[in-house]
Amino acid sequence: MADTKPQLRDIMPEPTLRRLPWYLAYVSMLRSRNVEYVSSTAISKEINVDASQIAKDLSFLNIRGKTRIGYAVAALERVLRSYLGFNRDHHAVLIGVGSLGRALITDSGLTRYGLDIVAGFDVDPAVVGSTIMNVPVFDITALPAVRESLGADIAIITVPVEQAQHTADIAIAAGAKALWNFTPFRIRTPEGIVVQNTSIYAHLAVMYNRLNIKSDSK
Amino acid sequence: MADTKPQLRDIMPEPTLRRLPWYLAYVSMLRSRNVEYVSSTAISKEINVDASQIAKDLSFLNIRGKTRIGYAVAALERVLRSYLGFNRDHHAVLIGVGSLGRALITDSGLTRYGLDIVAGFDVDPAVVGSTIMNVPVFDITALPAVRESLGADIAIITVPVEQAQHTADIAIAAGAKALWNFTPFRIRTPEGIVVQNTSIYAHLAVMYNRLNIKSDSK
Repeated sequence: MADTKPQLRDIMPEPTLRRLPWYLAYVSMLRSRNVEYVSSTAISKEINVDASQIAKDLSFLNIRGKTRIGYAVAALERVLRSYLGFNRDHHAVLIGVGSLGRALITDSGLTRYGLDIVAGFDVDPAVVGSTIMNVPVFDITALPAVRESLGADIAIITVPVEQAQHTADIAIAAGAKALWNFTPFRIRTPEGIVVQNTSIYAHLAVMYNRLNIKSDSK
Repeated sequence: MADTKPQLRDIMPEPTLRRLPWYLAYVSMLRSRNVEYVSSTAISKEINVDASQIAKDLSFLNIRGKTRIGYAVAALERVLRSYLGFNRDHHAVLIGVGSLGRALITDSGLTRYGLDIVAGFDVDPAVVGSTIMNVPVFDITALPAVRESLGADIAIITVPVEQAQHTADIAIAAGAKALWNFTPFRIRTPEGIVVQNTSIYAHLAVMYNRLNIKSDSK
């Protein structure tokens, strides 16, 4: 049972994982301002997380801060980026080349975070056969063959909500290992399939609600 | 202290609020299939939330299910949409007309969820003065005047991460009441300002991590 090379990332708690991009954002900003060292106390002041929590979170990474000086900014940025997988090239297919799907394909920001959308899929003859920012759009029936040949483990789901489950089933049958679901639908998947839900519209509901509470209490 | 008209939305727990869009997504699909009634048990089977939790969540809304029949689908959809604020018109300005900002302006999906982006702002002379999908792009210095004249309480922040805090400060000074922050930066705001963080890139990190764990355990 003894493992000579422990997989640290296996045991990182998800709340820690979710905080790492905040630290990365902050140290990237420091580097752009040519700051050389930063302490967990200084990070804490900027992003409202306890300094002790930050030190604990960063202890999961292969980096040590120096007493009274802190972490080397450039090294911390590099280690965070690498740990988060942003410096690797993850191939993804996108299913549903409507308004949001097209927006994601044209968002060059995703490439900087390690996501490379290599093909789009749709059922609409008006978009099938077209190319968006050098990304070809295929008919959905070509998904199994194209996905495999392009080595895309990730399927991005940007179809209308009523097509979400059906599309997920097709993507999994075609060999996708992870689904990035942009619909508010709660997709059911077999065990072993990774699902990441990003419903930007659900976030809107929370924001409206808080704004209303403020207006009501005036 | 007795309030003759309790503000139900004031007391809804956030986890409940976050689940409502899932229910809405599902009943919208049912309506598109002309289903007339749905029980909390049937919803439960589809979206992996306990039936008792669903009944409890829906009890916050002004709707009653019928014994053995369930909720009227069309009424439930209408009540959910209204409660979530998706049927109202919320004006927003967008700051940072780069790749992601442009994508959000062109995403007509937001309009269907009650968000109307009425103006864009940037510092780049190459985009200032242009129009994207009928949305004019102004220089950032025009923000206070334009925001007020268009009645936009919400500011969407899609600038580079190192500009996030500065941009938030400008938006609040210009009168914005809510910030929808798409950067991974943890913005600090004065009390009373609503902040909704939607860092799609942080979601990517979680997805990569889970995919890696799966690959390692093969």
